[in-house]
Amino acid sequence: MSRTRGLERLFAPRSIAVVGASASPDKAGHQLLKNLTGFAGKLYPINPKASEILGLRAYPSLAAIGTPVDLVALAIPAEACPAALAEADAAGAGGALIAGGGFGESGAPGRSLQDALAQICRAGSIRLLGPNTAGFANPPAGFAASFAPGLERLPAGRIAVVAQSAGVNITTAFLLQNRGYGVRLAVGLGNSVDVAAADVVAWLADDPLTDVIALHLEGIPDGRALVETIRRAVPKKAVVALTVGRADVATFAQSHTGNLIGDYARKRAALRAAGAVLVETTDELVDAAIALVHGRIPPKADAGVGLMTAQAGPGLLMFDALRTSGVALPSFGDATAARIAELLPPMTYVRNPVDTARPAPTYGEVLRAIADDPAIDAVAVYTLHEPAAVDPVAVFGAARAELGVPVVFGTMGIDGDVAPTFAALRELGIPAFPGPERTARAVRALVEDAAARARVARARASVEAAAERIAAPLDELGAKALLRAYGIATPPAHACATHDQARAAYAALTKPVVVKVLNPAILHKTEAGGVHLFVDTPERLEAALDAIDRIDAPTPSRYVVEEMAPPGLELIVGALNDPSFGPTVLIGMGGTQAEALRDTATTLAPLDLDDALALLASLRAAALLDGWRGAPAVDRRAVAQALVAVGRLIAAHPEIAELDVNPLRAYPSGVLALDAAVVLTPGAREARVVARR
Amino acid sequence: MSRTRGLERLFAPRSIAVVGASASPDKAGHQLLKNLTGFAGKLYPINPKASEILGLRAYPSLAAIGTPVDLVALAIPAEACPAALAEADAAGAGGALIAGGGFGESGAPGRSLQDALAQICRAGSIRLLGPNTAGFANPPAGFAASFAPGLERLPAGRIAVVAQSAGVNITTAFLLQNRGYGVRLAVGLGNSVDVAAADVVAWLADDPLTDVIALHLEGIPDGRALVETIRRAVPKKAVVALTVGRADVATFAQSHTGNLIGDYARKRAALRAAGAVLVETTDELVDAAIALVHGRIPPKADAGVGLMTAQAGPGLLMFDALRTSGVALPSFGDATAARIAELLPPMTYVRNPVDTARPAPTYGEVLRAIADDPAIDAVAVYTLHEPAAVDPVAVFGAARAELGVPVVFGTMGIDGDVAPTFAALRELGIPAFPGPERTARAVRALVEDAAARARVARARASVEAAAERIAAPLDELGAKALLRAYGIATPPAHACATHDQARAAYAALTKPVVVKVLNPAILHKTEAGGVHLFVDTPERLEAALDAIDRIDAPTPSRYVVEEMAPPGLELIVGALNDPSFGPTVLIGMGGTQAEALRDTATTLAPLDLDDALALLASLRAAALLDGWRGAPAVDRRAVAQALVAVGRLIAAHPEIAELDVNPLRAYPSGVLALDAAVVLTPGAREARVVARR
Repeated sequence: MSRTRGLERLFAPRSIAVVGASASPDKAGHQLLKNLTGFAGKLYPINPKASEILGLRAYPSLAAIGTPVDLVALAIPAEACPAALAEADAAGAGGALIAGGGFGESGAPGRSLQDALAQICRAGSIRLLGPNTAGFANPPAGFAASFAPGLERLPAGRIAVVAQSAGVNITTAFLLQNRGYGVRLAVGLGNSVDVAAADVVAWLADDPLTDVIALHLEGIPDGRALVETIRRAVPKKAVVALTVGRADVATFAQSHTGNLIGDYARKRAALRAAGAVLVETTDELVDAAIALVHGRIPPKADAGVGLMTAQAGPGLLMFDALRTSGVALPSFGDATAARIAELLPPMTYVRNPVDTARPAPTYGEVLRAIADDPAIDAVAVYTLHEPAAVDPVAVFGAARAELGVPVVFGTMGIDGDVAPTFAALRELGIPAFPGPERTARAVRALVEDAAARARVARARASVEAAAERIAAPLDELGAKALLRAYGIATPPAHACATHDQARAAYAALTKPVVVKVLNPAILHKTEAGGVHLFVDTPERLEAALDAIDRIDAPTPSRYVVEEMAPPGLELIVGALNDPSFGPTVLIGMGGTQAEALRDTATTLAPLDLDDALALLASLRAAALLDGWRGAPAVDRRAVAQALVAVGRLIAAHPEIAELDVNPLRAYPSGVLALDAAVVLTPGAREARVVARR
Repeated sequence: MSRTRGLERLFAPRSIAVVGASASPDKAGHQLLKNLTGFAGKLYPINPKASEILGLRAYPSLAAIGTPVDLVALAIPAEACPAALAEADAAGAGGALIAGGGFGESGAPGRSLQDALAQICRAGSIRLLGPNTAGFANPPAGFAASFAPGLERLPAGRIAVVAQSAGVNITTAFLLQNRGYGVRLAVGLGNSVDVAAADVVAWLADDPLTDVIALHLEGIPDGRALVETIRRAVPKKAVVALTVGRADVATFAQSHTGNLIGDYARKRAALRAAGAVLVETTDELVDAAIALVHGRIPPKADAGVGLMTAQAGPGLLMFDALRTSGVALPSFGDATAARIAELLPPMTYVRNPVDTARPAPTYGEVLRAIADDPAIDAVAVYTLHEPAAVDPVAVFGAARAELGVPVVFGTMGIDGDVAPTFAALRELGIPAFPGPERTARAVRALVEDAAARARVARARASVEAAAERIAAPLDELGAKALLRAYGIATPPAHACATHDQARAAYAALTKPVVVKVLNPAILHKTEAGGVHLFVDTPERLEAALDAIDRIDAPTPSRYVVEEMAPPGLELIVGALNDPSFGPTVLIGMGGTQAEALRDTATTLAPLDLDDALALLASLRAAALLDGWRGAPAVDRRAVAQALVAVGRLIAAHPEIAELDVNPLRAYPSGVLALDAAVVLTPGAREARVVARR
């Protein structure tokens, strides 16, 4: 069953019925009908007590219309919604919208009403938007299916807004309108009983009127589906995503949508892996969408930005912001530098950034020279509004066609003076922003979109068929055997049931060895006195075995005799099957300090070597990998290969809830997994299936 | 000599002369004169070749005017400026302005011109703004001494802008104007040959027309003076500061003002210690200034914010942003919660944040209830523009007088609908912001200002008289003796010249001991094989001494025999006399990881115990201090006392360039300095004097 089934009829209907349409202006059923007056299709007020509302013939029921309508908007009390939804489904409606609240976000009675709605959607064929949402606006079609004032007057544009929250949907749409931009569709998902973000993204991915998708997400119940949908959309549309939950907002969030908010880092990691440009505020969401709607940079891992400024101070703020966020500002080639030097007075800075000083007639030429530099994939320009010196509209108007790369323009001036410039540039297809930092942020969005496209374009590491399911709990050696099966080396070791077996193992291994207790009942081996290092004489072996025998445990312990690994850099590698996003991997620096500093990075599994190398490089303490204070550099490639292997492992074993390799010791050549633990959750798979619709 | 001398005549002149005034519209000397036409005082064009310019009588020279003018604006080539400045000084002018460039920011000839200007200011009594600046605007006096178009039309307001960069000054002033706010003064400092940020802040601190000072700083040549000036201003005016240099921008910055950009962390630490509210973009600078110009929270270390939202989604974004930035959102008292429960329908969230759902007539009552809660020092409100549900202008108009705390309002709506609301609220003295996150940022600025006021209000740790100057370099034991003189404990140790002395020391100390080489020529003791741990037998002592004797060094080595300290948590404590900010201290976690993660915090010295505890708590890995993975918690107070002591030490010894205590080992009770090094710079003091004017 396709995610997009019925959405055409829901979001682009040819007929709409409003159940609960009312003549009294204070009723939601009135405001909703009023917001629909611009609708070009057939509009049916449904109200058994009225014959005519707002000049439209009213019908006692959906059935009375005599023909199926595309969209049914329910403006009636929560208790009445399940029956009305069932009736709409029976009457052959394509989609329904429930704007009102009183469902999953409220107490137990509300939750059971919501379950009833979900049941109807599962059993029938109707699609449901909401409940607990302000609805949606479709400006190109000239209507808003919402009681929120103003939505019906949104101008049409090519940016689609899809927000979990009705309030954020409306805020974002209005922020765009305030900047002079229209929207293609503005959808508030609310409680997402049926229609979820992934469904709308899938529909927009093939919508000819959409160029950019701006997402707001809170809890993400079916993350894996969303990731796959975004991944399919990104080659065709730019996707910008804002999510919530840096701080602990669980309680308030729960009261709001009834959703769990989920792990922020994992949500961000998943959206990045999917190819979305991540932002942290609605302003950034809007600025990024505006930058992208005028054109994207082709897929490129590390796009270079040329910075051109007429005022050095603002240029310095932009340069600082771009460098801090990791955007490359490559130094221009000699040809470009020479050309710019011809065009500008001496003593200006020409290697990137370019400080033109007060714009001269050569301004446009300088812009062309920068845009033509082979290292430059986008140009950011900042110039105060100074008509006597330069007219950006004329310059960009002339240059637009010749410029092979996107240009982002920033300026500032007296309100009334600069507003026409913003409007004219918008018409020219040049994104323009007020002030230096927003301009920098906008070009950064272009760069991150290009990198995301490059990531998504790469052949994905393929999910392999689930391996044979692990039934029984694994002890340390069992977990290590599993790692070896995926190509991760572990030190030579033997499991021994008796002292004699241990002596034989000791004789066979290179000294010194480690002697460890092997007993599923003993979780913290070291604390229990079950780990004995530097065993290099028979006497020490006996002492170690006796010490282990003395550990109090329900079942008799066995022994691990293992060659002691040489010192190296300690890392932590983890993997878990997230209930929403499925298999994920995590890398972190070992040791208490890094732990306390939470210096970890996470992404989705499976991942390929480039993903793994990028993840490793994203650690704040990555410098330690290259040798620090005289320590040798470690084998990044080997660490990355171990990450890839753990990703394949967790993806192939949905029955594994969590896998920890702590430490993974890294050397100038190769790595060794010194300890490993596996936690099984037979329920893991089922949990995810339930989460899906 | 006072910093503010002559600034009244410079910034609020009664007469202005324009040297290089010109009749040809493309000349800066023409645009500058034109921007001054609104000036109410006397205006004198100076041009030997003209008798009349723009309808004003022109004079051949300043002397020809016959009476001293307050401000002389030089619109002439750089080479001509020194002579003209000297002439202005001789003619008794109060201040001069050089807008043009070609000075310190350019090559050697420019630098020597700039030196000439500095020399004239030092020798004479005239104050100079610039060179290499666009000048300044004084809207309350109706003029702009600048060639930048638009500045002359800035509305008057109570926010002063002081920016290193002319471009940032103008950008910020226009951003304020775009938000409907005027400025009191908008100054671009340029190369700051004479008038520096500290001077203007000092003047504004006592200016009756100023409520908020918005600062932009790049390199800060005389940081200590700026800090002291801001500290004196903050009780009277709110100060918001933006500085640059998170990334490495040195090269570009150099080409721009000729300034060194300085250490970003140290600049931020100094400005925070001075009581400024720190921001990272011009947008944040403007939003913070707008929030503060309508009223501040009284001094309070941890002001509490009440959050009231009509749409849960935007409220969640605000809640998340505030919590992430460490703003306290205290849970309301029972009385408040009960009152709100009376006023709102069930199932809304009432403990903070308050989710009112669609505003009802009780909206204003809910606002009052929140503002009245004893735990609440400011209220942040967000409501989409919905006239049918609530009119914020009416609500705030009615409530304003009764609300005992500042309120920050956020909203969004169709451009034309919501603009009048913003204007009306501005008139009411209610700061209003577009969208949720900017509203959250604004209230955060109020909270940080209150905390800064509390810090500045505390009795400052007093700078003690410089101690007896250390003449000769100190070895490890000398450095440790210095630490002990300031109350920082070190392990019992003896310096020994001979093996016999070492044996005697060994006999006298508790075992095990550490035997270290003592030789100023050997910097890296461990690498040189000059550190021997766990010495607990006479044989090991002899072996250690012999090993030290074998170290190749220009002068014969002595020995340190020191009791070995028990294990504990290792910290790094440093102190340095910064050429700009003077004495500063630094604390960091010990170990390579923390080093690689740059987990350090710095502030100005001297500091008091509260400052030190706050600094310690600001470390990312502060959790390690409280015991991590079973380690005991360490004595925070003792660590803080050591920081205070090091602060007193560095402040009392300007001849010390740098002091390092690495490690400072912390225990459940007390701390021990295990190693210490002192670097002297005889020039340190002088350097700072030169930096001062």
